[in-house]
Amino acid sequence: MVTNGKKLFDLLNVDAIFITCEYQMRYVTGFAAENGGVLVNKDGVTLYTDSRYIEAAEKLFQNSKVTPVLWGGKTWKDVLSGYQRVAISFAETSHADVLKLQEIGMELVNADEAFKKAMTVKNEWELSCIQKACEIAEDAFLALLPEIKEGMTETEVAALLEYNMRKLGAQGVSFDTIVAFGAHAAVPHHETGNTKLQFGDEVLIDFGCRVNGYCSDITRTFLFGDDGKHESFKKAYAAVLKAHTLVKEKLTAGMTGKEADAIARDYLKEQGYGELFTHSLGHGIGLNVHEFPGVSPRSESVLEDGMVFSDEPGVYVAGEYGIRIEDTVTLQNGKVVSFMKKTNRELVIL
Amino acid sequence: MVTNGKKLFDLLNVDAIFITCEYQMRYVTGFAAENGGVLVNKDGVTLYTDSRYIEAAEKLFQNSKVTPVLWGGKTWKDVLSGYQRVAISFAETSHADVLKLQEIGMELVNADEAFKKAMTVKNEWELSCIQKACEIAEDAFLALLPEIKEGMTETEVAALLEYNMRKLGAQGVSFDTIVAFGAHAAVPHHETGNTKLQFGDEVLIDFGCRVNGYCSDITRTFLFGDDGKHESFKKAYAAVLKAHTLVKEKLTAGMTGKEADAIARDYLKEQGYGELFTHSLGHGIGLNVHEFPGVSPRSESVLEDGMVFSDEPGVYVAGEYGIRIEDTVTLQNGKVVSFMKKTNRELVIL
Repeated sequence: MVTNGKKLFDLLNVDAIFITCEYQMRYVTGFAAENGGVLVNKDGVTLYTDSRYIEAAEKLFQNSKVTPVLWGGKTWKDVLSGYQRVAISFAETSHADVLKLQEIGMELVNADEAFKKAMTVKNEWELSCIQKACEIAEDAFLALLPEIKEGMTETEVAALLEYNMRKLGAQGVSFDTIVAFGAHAAVPHHETGNTKLQFGDEVLIDFGCRVNGYCSDITRTFLFGDDGKHESFKKAYAAVLKAHTLVKEKLTAGMTGKEADAIARDYLKEQGYGELFTHSLGHGIGLNVHEFPGVSPRSESVLEDGMVFSDEPGVYVAGEYGIRIEDTVTLQNGKVVSFMKKTNRELVIL
Repeated sequence: MVTNGKKLFDLLNVDAIFITCEYQMRYVTGFAAENGGVLVNKDGVTLYTDSRYIEAAEKLFQNSKVTPVLWGGKTWKDVLSGYQRVAISFAETSHADVLKLQEIGMELVNADEAFKKAMTVKNEWELSCIQKACEIAEDAFLALLPEIKEGMTETEVAALLEYNMRKLGAQGVSFDTIVAFGAHAAVPHHETGNTKLQFGDEVLIDFGCRVNGYCSDITRTFLFGDDGKHESFKKAYAAVLKAHTLVKEKLTAGMTGKEADAIARDYLKEQGYGELFTHSLGHGIGLNVHEFPGVSPRSESVLEDGMVFSDEPGVYVAGEYGIRIEDTVTLQNGKVVSFMKKTNRELVIL
């Protein structure tokens, strides 16, 4: 595990950074505790926690620059006294907590831009967590396929997939699993429900899990048997797959999110699907399943080595079908490398 | 479904209440949408949402006092212009968002006390959601018991229990499921891990699920076979069960949280377990798994009909065993009524 306290501190001209939000705590220490707090100053990182977590924290942080300390009777005032300029995340700190901090009397500096900048490029340890979360997601999906039977509900399929991920070591899901049968797949954020699977249905599953807080995000679309009525679907599937693959081939470090998005969007337009690709090509992925960089028609973010994002073109025909093919990918030596190595992108017919 | 917009509005002397936090949105409308907003004024409740949710919202709110509206290009400024005094939750609104609201130029009033006061006593619809979440939790537990086998890990047991709850219609868990084998049960917030179940182990499971956002919370402790080494455990189990039952018999509306806590604590002290009951008797339960009222040695909250909280005494002997028996309960006609009607509190030996 590599801690990111120094990386963040060097971006901010302050005496200390104070963190109480779970994912930001994880970012700086690799560890998260309910009722925890993290203080970063020029000397290192102190993790304040309670008796429930202290033993695990001490074990994890021996020989590291993170010092775990029991809150004991300490208040925020005790922890922060003596600092003049303190950075906190304005986006992740409640107004009620800011009022408490203001009473202590230091100058508060917004850390949001620094967090964004630091978190966007991942280090080796972060990449390995995302790799593991992707492997678990793919293995869970491969274990799910032979269990899918006619008459199962969307919710049952989602429950089984989540069970598989949990058994394989995931901490939990990275977002509510989307399972859409038939025309439900035409709604990009379909709410998984009690519809039963029928022979010939298409199935779209968008899912992911967490390892040490880091997320995976993957979508696969397939057919549950072929009733011979899927000509238009298959044509669109081939186009989405081609768009997905073109991004992997043509996207290079230095492009903006907008230019990356255009690789898929221009191709789908050429093929007559322009209006039916109704969302962005992708979004950054890390401790949050949606974070920087943006990979959309409006994004000026420059994509760099070590950034992690989704490649997920889609085509949606209301009332008929929807197709999305999504990998979590990164940039390495200027080129796209997918974390997904086990599951098919070619159309599967169960 | 009963909406709570008027109840909340009547507690606050303001022109409007503006809500963006998910559970508070659910509290006022019974509905939650990502990227949503709720405005309450003297005329009723307006729910702002996007195209993903509008259809479901229109169906849900026909013939109700809630009006669903598409955000479209609307900003917070558009929605709030014309109001002088606007209440928001300081605890659930980020400082960054408060700065945006302050720019619009209205007077911001803290709604936290009003939310707390309004949410603590539940209406019939809220009680029915909690009842359903409790039934699902109990049914999932009963379906789990025959599946528990030697060699399973804590994580596998948790995954199976969560799968059962999901299959039975839960939206998700109300908190990370705690499964503790053997001496792990002595840690009240044990982190579920890869320890394997052995014959003679005690098993402690603390879990719950959500229905329409409302939580259940239940703990059961049992033996996986009896290896004859559990004399001290069994004696303590009987004491915890008696403490749990005394609360149900003696707690009446009008008592403070402190007085309720003392019913269990005094009994466990008498039996020589005073020092080993290391946490509070309970906590309020609703849209949050921990909310008001407090039921602890320090709580001055007066318990009333319609409040929902846990009755969960415990005894923990480090390195040896831990026992907790927990029901989610409410007060009705001044007396305790448990939502848990299906599972044993008496010691089960599998």
